[in-house]
Amino acid sequence: MKEGKAFVKEITPQSEDFSRWYIDTIKKADLMDYTPVRGCIVFKPDGFELWERIQEAMDKRFKETGHRNAYFPMLIPESFFQKEKEHVEGFNPELPWVTEAAGEQLEERLALRPTSETMIGHMYSQWIQSYRDLPVLINQWANVFRWEKRTMPFLRTSEFLWQEGHTAHATEEEARQETMQMLDIYAEVVEELLAIPVWKGQKTPSERFAGAVDTYSIEAMMKDGKAVQAGTSHYLGEKFARGFEIKYLDRDNQFKYVHTTSWGTSTRLIGSMIMVHGDDRGLSLPPRVAPTQVVMIPVGPPKLRERVMAAFDPLFDQLKAAGVRVRADLREETPGWKFNEWEMRGVPIRLEIGPRDVENGQVILARRDTGEKITAPLADAVEAVVNLLEEIQQNMYQRAVEFRNAHSHLEINTLEELKQHAETAEKENGIAGWVLAGWCGDNGCEAKVKEETKFTSRNIPFEPPAQKSACICCGKEAMHTVWFARAY
Amino acid sequence: MKEGKAFVKEITPQSEDFSRWYIDTIKKADLMDYTPVRGCIVFKPDGFELWERIQEAMDKRFKETGHRNAYFPMLIPESFFQKEKEHVEGFNPELPWVTEAAGEQLEERLALRPTSETMIGHMYSQWIQSYRDLPVLINQWANVFRWEKRTMPFLRTSEFLWQEGHTAHATEEEARQETMQMLDIYAEVVEELLAIPVWKGQKTPSERFAGAVDTYSIEAMMKDGKAVQAGTSHYLGEKFARGFEIKYLDRDNQFKYVHTTSWGTSTRLIGSMIMVHGDDRGLSLPPRVAPTQVVMIPVGPPKLRERVMAAFDPLFDQLKAAGVRVRADLREETPGWKFNEWEMRGVPIRLEIGPRDVENGQVILARRDTGEKITAPLADAVEAVVNLLEEIQQNMYQRAVEFRNAHSHLEINTLEELKQHAETAEKENGIAGWVLAGWCGDNGCEAKVKEETKFTSRNIPFEPPAQKSACICCGKEAMHTVWFARAY
Repeated sequence: MKEGKAFVKEITPQSEDFSRWYIDTIKKADLMDYTPVRGCIVFKPDGFELWERIQEAMDKRFKETGHRNAYFPMLIPESFFQKEKEHVEGFNPELPWVTEAAGEQLEERLALRPTSETMIGHMYSQWIQSYRDLPVLINQWANVFRWEKRTMPFLRTSEFLWQEGHTAHATEEEARQETMQMLDIYAEVVEELLAIPVWKGQKTPSERFAGAVDTYSIEAMMKDGKAVQAGTSHYLGEKFARGFEIKYLDRDNQFKYVHTTSWGTSTRLIGSMIMVHGDDRGLSLPPRVAPTQVVMIPVGPPKLRERVMAAFDPLFDQLKAAGVRVRADLREETPGWKFNEWEMRGVPIRLEIGPRDVENGQVILARRDTGEKITAPLADAVEAVVNLLEEIQQNMYQRAVEFRNAHSHLEINTLEELKQHAETAEKENGIAGWVLAGWCGDNGCEAKVKEETKFTSRNIPFEPPAQKSACICCGKEAMHTVWFARAY
Repeated sequence: MKEGKAFVKEITPQSEDFSRWYIDTIKKADLMDYTPVRGCIVFKPDGFELWERIQEAMDKRFKETGHRNAYFPMLIPESFFQKEKEHVEGFNPELPWVTEAAGEQLEERLALRPTSETMIGHMYSQWIQSYRDLPVLINQWANVFRWEKRTMPFLRTSEFLWQEGHTAHATEEEARQETMQMLDIYAEVVEELLAIPVWKGQKTPSERFAGAVDTYSIEAMMKDGKAVQAGTSHYLGEKFARGFEIKYLDRDNQFKYVHTTSWGTSTRLIGSMIMVHGDDRGLSLPPRVAPTQVVMIPVGPPKLRERVMAAFDPLFDQLKAAGVRVRADLREETPGWKFNEWEMRGVPIRLEIGPRDVENGQVILARRDTGEKITAPLADAVEAVVNLLEEIQQNMYQRAVEFRNAHSHLEINTLEELKQHAETAEKENGIAGWVLAGWCGDNGCEAKVKEETKFTSRNIPFEPPAQKSACICCGKEAMHTVWFARAY
């Protein structure tokens, strides 16, 4: 598709209605479209390319750490879910079922996978016999289904794309190391590629993955102050091993259950990235993930165009040769119209050349992140662009850190204070942000905070910015320091 | 998983039972496993990596020719299938249906996509308004479902992986060019990467894709003489455009239907590659697609191992640095056991070094394709390996061409002769191969050939090795020269 379509309406300001801003932005940036199937979207080319870059960065790291990709069936027999009690309770309410195929009723219903621990557990039980077969380090890129009530493009859709790693180990220690290694990889990709700072930490028991012994997550703050769980890594202990009889004969001639892990990130990373960096002008893409890093636009009167193109075309070729993802916009629309469109689409650098620039041997570089315009010598334009892309990447990360810090509250110590804080933020149409709170470890306290404030525990950060001594709810001694926030 | 497992039985010889040979080979090479879901397999890491290399080669060419990837919902409303009459008739008998989700009956059944013309047609009707929106050039990598009666790993499974390109154009001419361009890309990847020679040609009307105006295919000959349709490219005319109302306002201010194409290749390419190159010792992989191109094995008495490793380790590093996919097998098993295993797994080159080789400053290179053993100077081993990999790739292709030519019959002119030929081959446990035949163009004649010989029309090759003047069935003037063969 060409980008020439007239846009029907402007983007709703973030401060007016963040959800509408989000929808306006992703529609105008042409990242997705709705479909007639409930909660299912089309990932359009500009949206899908973001996913391809995330995949590339993740997959490289998975392989470097010894994992290999495989593909397991999407359809899972109903009986498989019964084998791990917590797992079935967690996922059963959201499953779509195939009941007929090729004109016949099936004897057993088949679920569209919400995650593959059960199918993979079944297969591993057949593949693993001896300690020599361990570890098993497999990842799968796949579509998954969770038929949830409320959906939101990229963040929560009935069908989404993800990767799910599933590993089996001889010992708990090794499995726990794997769990942490993958959490670190997630944090690295999300911070370095998507310029999103995250808190690594452990989920509270009530927020654990259905069937996990321990769940760890990376949590990111959106520009409306809400949280997104951007990736999870689970130590599953022997739970699935017992459910599916995954046993191995150890060196000591004893049969033992393996220790398994699973870990996943999904297309919700796309939504998170949009909500961390976007602004009232629309999308703003970190250079490393942007499908187009630089858009070149010739300016000035058409009769002088030939002169401009004599400088424009070689520079385009040089940028391409330097590995920059550059695009030339030579359409008939006015420069102003084009500027607006590429801003909306989040391209990190707009490179303008007009007749006067050619005369002066210069180009104009307009930064999407700051709005700043920089004049660079035409002769050094490639180097200037390459350096500026890196600077923008760093700046976007820094700004996200600053935004997060500015909206992270360490001063709130009681439920009353939290309620007050949330109320004030709401009244002023402000950003409630995150609250670092002490927690005694009691599920009831956690549930009460949620009920009264809609703040849920995000995670228990490994390196909290402060230590809290008293439970925010009951005031008793805090066992953990926890991030609480409203979340997507 | 380690490769150390004992193998239960040897591989059935091809000449004894080709299907059993195939299953033995893919199981022993650890490419796949069966699952409890009817007709669905696991693509194990060594099998999936073959697919990753095919994907990489295809995707690169799709992007170079201006296509972009997107992702559309897997679930397709039943009503969508009704919009193109031939399409629904073709696919309806094979569809699995989701009828319940999240504990409720759905109002409309949702099919698991067998292919996405309908969903994509629906979306394109909303995206395409003007000639400026054309062409739309989109590809999708996805899982698809066809609930067929008889399944065979990789070649025909209930769920399989594929890519499906879907394009929309202003004119028939442009759409037909696209159809041919993609067929050419398929032929290129299959011949250059998988070393499989193919015949490009047009399908007869009875073998057309359900809903296509014209279907083109690439057809490959397996080692049992049967044919596999390795890729198809369809010119869909205005059929789906009319079904889904995909219209654009042209420069002349008239609304016109777009012309669409679709084209696909799938994981059946893996199965084809195995059946073209494998032999009684198991898998044989063309170097360009092999996950491991060279396996290095130290030989000689353990007490001299240290001396061997002093040459072995640096060579391993050099090969890796040169971009060769090399693997060192340092397990405790005997060299003979290892040789056998890596042959079975199809690794193109086995590199042996023993104490005497170190003394003589040489290595032994054993070719999987010919069985030949070559002595190369240790100092030039990297160059020797790189050149030999290329030579093996070319040789495997040449051998496949020769096999195909040897089993392509141009001398058969009547149905009686064909029956006689097929019967003789069967009696002698020989290979019936392919028959180039004249065809008058009548569906009845084609059907009669099929009924009496199980030979079906493969395609009408663009460049047939000979021209036939009379219909093989009725003897009337031939309109086309057609490849007939038994097919998977």
